Amino acid sequence: MAAWGERLAGVRGVLLDISGVLYDGGEGGGAPIVGSVEALARLKRSQLKVRFCTNESQKSRGDLVGMLRRLGFDISEGEVTAPAPATCLILKERGLRPHLLIHDGVRSEFDQIDTSNPNCVVIADAGEGFSYQNMNKAFQVLMELENPVLFSLGKGRYYKETSGLMLDVGPYMKALEYACGIEAEVVGKPSPEFFKSALREMRVEAHQAIMIGDDIVGDISGAQRCGMRALQVRTGKFSPKCRA
Amino acid sequence: MAAWGERLAGVRGVLLDISGVLYDGGEGGGAPIVGSVEALARLKRSQLKVRFCTNESQKSRGDLVGMLRRLGFDISEGEVTAPAPATCLILKERGLRPHLLIHDGVRSEFDQIDTSNPNCVVIADAGEGFSYQNMNKAFQVLMELENPVLFSLGKGRYYKETSGLMLDVGPYMKALEYACGIEAEVVGKPSPEFFKSALREMRVEAHQAIMIGDDIVGDISGAQRCGMRALQVRTGKFSPKCRA
Repeated sequence: MAAWGERLAGVRGVLLDISGVLYDGGEGGGAPIVGSVEALARLKRSQLKVRFCTNESQKSRGDLVGMLRRLGFDISEGEVTAPAPATCLILKERGLRPHLLIHDGVRSEFDQIDTSNPNCVVIADAGEGFSYQNMNKAFQVLMELENPVLFSLGKGRYYKETSGLMLDVGPYMKALEYACGIEAEVVGKPSPEFFKSALREMRVEAHQAIMIGDDIVGDISGAQRCGMRALQVRTGKFSPKCRA
Repeated sequence: MAAWGERLAGVRGVLLDISGVLYDGGEGGGAPIVGSVEALARLKRSQLKVRFCTNESQKSRGDLVGMLRRLGFDISEGEVTAPAPATCLILKERGLRPHLLIHDGVRSEFDQIDTSNPNCVVIADAGEGFSYQNMNKAFQVLMELENPVLFSLGKGRYYKETSGLMLDVGPYMKALEYACGIEAEVVGKPSPEFFKSALREMRVEAHQAIMIGDDIVGDISGAQRCGMRALQVRTGKFSPKCRA
């Protein structure tokens, strides 16, 4: 393995995943991962550009940043690339009106979006909102469309809360894909468009950036496919079984 | 297209799907499909052997047969091949203790099964039971096993109730498969073992049998792959869009 200096040569920007890297979510807002508040502060004092690239879709960026600041992190809303605002841009560009199967905590991000007479479905990590009734409603909306369009805010398999592993949006995306015989459009990691938008916002080229995350697929492979370097932490959902 | 006489030459036994062929389920127990009570009575008066081959997994065979008899159908419990009893045989053979994610209506079929300290998961069409909490529990049980084993009672995409299309177990099987990175073992149509057990119980060879159903994958392709003939009805979930 090459020395760290060599592996990080030419790096100008750092993209940080949030859940599992900065903190583990859970009851009462979750808890910072040991050392992460200090590590971020040190990064911010360095010459490196820092940006946050998250698939968080249970909270609006405002709520997410507020929670992280209360935990001690130096972070502001303008530094966060997240799937919900990226989805709103796509919906507006394509004139789509979504049926939303999302967590109440992120609903405010869609305030400016017309949801009447829906012609597509948007799903995000809805947590308890993934009831049979809500899934069936999303399914029925899709089946009534001539060309069903399904957006999924990320496609993570699961994440880790302080209470244990929790199903993410990905399994529910797969459920609707199978039920309707369609393929979802993923907005969020590991979509290349999503990483590219984060790089644009950071004003750093892919070969000058490193992604730090706990998800071998969403963070690591995704970033590498975009020409970035990537580093997997051993916190969050990291498991020695899931390195391949 | 060959004439009916030619297409049915040598047929000695008829396997009938139930939901979408005999009746459409729904509020208040559902409703018989027009003409089906009489058609079944006529079949029973013929020389043909008749057996019912269903993926119904919300109800025990006893409850299903009771409901169908009240709707006017000539059917008895011993004539029904269903996934829950087939699964119980497999669990006993392999010494497996399931965590059950199933509808309360079918729970009695598992009365004789040890569910302590589970080493596998069984999912069936749980309807409203497919809550986030219940799905997450099944996911956590699987993730804690060294060799996760998931049984799915059928893998249907959806079925039709009087109130509209409803998600079946298949999408939830796909969700758990994706979340855990595993492949489920399907007990029920279109599994060849399931059709073969129905044929054995009817004492008819595959080439002497015809399957009648509304599901192009579960009923029609599945039966044909076993060497049976098959006939798709235009009731239930049949849609001209889904013939291929």
